[in-house]
Amino acid sequence: MDAPAHFGRGRNHVHLVPLDRLIGPGCIINVKKKVENNHDYALSVSDLEDWEKMYGKIPEKAIVIMNSGWDKYKDDELKAWGTNNITDTTSYHTPGWSAQSITWLVKNRRINMIGVDTPSIDIGQTTKFEAHVAGAMNDLSMLENVVNLDKIPPSGTIIYAAVTKILDGSGAPTRVFAVVGDNTSGTSRVQYTWSLLLCIVSAILTFL
Amino acid sequence: MDAPAHFGRGRNHVHLVPLDRLIGPGCIINVKKKVENNHDYALSVSDLEDWEKMYGKIPEKAIVIMNSGWDKYKDDELKAWGTNNITDTTSYHTPGWSAQSITWLVKNRRINMIGVDTPSIDIGQTTKFEAHVAGAMNDLSMLENVVNLDKIPPSGTIIYAAVTKILDGSGAPTRVFAVVGDNTSGTSRVQYTWSLLLCIVSAILTFL
Repeated sequence: MDAPAHFGRGRNHVHLVPLDRLIGPGCIINVKKKVENNHDYALSVSDLEDWEKMYGKIPEKAIVIMNSGWDKYKDDELKAWGTNNITDTTSYHTPGWSAQSITWLVKNRRINMIGVDTPSIDIGQTTKFEAHVAGAMNDLSMLENVVNLDKIPPSGTIIYAAVTKILDGSGAPTRVFAVVGDNTSGTSRVQYTWSLLLCIVSAILTFL
Repeated sequence: MDAPAHFGRGRNHVHLVPLDRLIGPGCIINVKKKVENNHDYALSVSDLEDWEKMYGKIPEKAIVIMNSGWDKYKDDELKAWGTNNITDTTSYHTPGWSAQSITWLVKNRRINMIGVDTPSIDIGQTTKFEAHVAGAMNDLSMLENVVNLDKIPPSGTIIYAAVTKILDGSGAPTRVFAVVGDNTSGTSRVQYTWSLLLCIVSAILTFL
């Protein structure tokens, strides 16, 4: 995870990012088809709008992560950066976020965090790191190298980005996981079931 | 967090501990009074039984953490180990778990994890690390140096111990946090409320 301080002078370092900014509804934006034909693809506002047409409005506190299918390269540094020469950063070809889409999310949805399955929030061909800057200037933390996004649903999860609390770190290793369904609240589910049962019994009694 | 491999040959290293062993209902065992008079105090089965008298049976998958008040020493290495000579481990005086209490929990409650607010699961005066061994041999992971236990209720929380997934680590830095109440399951609560409302309406109709 990059904290806002990674690209924003005076912004929060890792240990200062509030816990409740690290947890939120997961929105996985699948851009695989576009990336297949264009390894320099930048996630756009219309990708977010397309997601919303399928799954509803991106909720408050969302953690919005690009799924470009890139985690298949996770064990191959060259492929992960889309290059044959790891020392030449101008040769990198990886998809990422556009600054516009980040600004749109911040302005129009009160999200908690963004992320990518590539090594960088920006596309590999960036020179100005516009996406990093747009995130940092809006106090967003940003997840990189997220894996296994195909294993969770595009919506309906809670994502936890439990960053290691390194004092004054501009970033840190992060255990990222999603809770699918409602595993942590057995009581609520039991209450719901009982309540529903009582309701049905009452309804039957009503119509007897 | 110490993974079972820390004291158990062939047991799980950090990256192999299943995620669902890292999450569970929090049980905070307050032994401050006993520790005040005895810095070598080992948490006993009767401390667990006393907790259960107050808060009910320790639930399945619980994460059970000793609160000895020790986190006041977190910034002072000598005091944290209860010694004047950090190089002489035989001089350490810190409270911890008894092996018996760990074995009791494993045998009688299906817990997920134990923890301490001291630097070690064992008491400082241990020579055989009985508590570490009892935990490891029962596939428990063990949290050390947990802080801020006074800030969460003794029961009713969900504790997350999001360990950094270090390949073949016998232990790793861990972001530990508690969710108080039911913040992550808005839907269930809404369902419950609606269901309850319907139930009441049906009941009223029944008796009209």
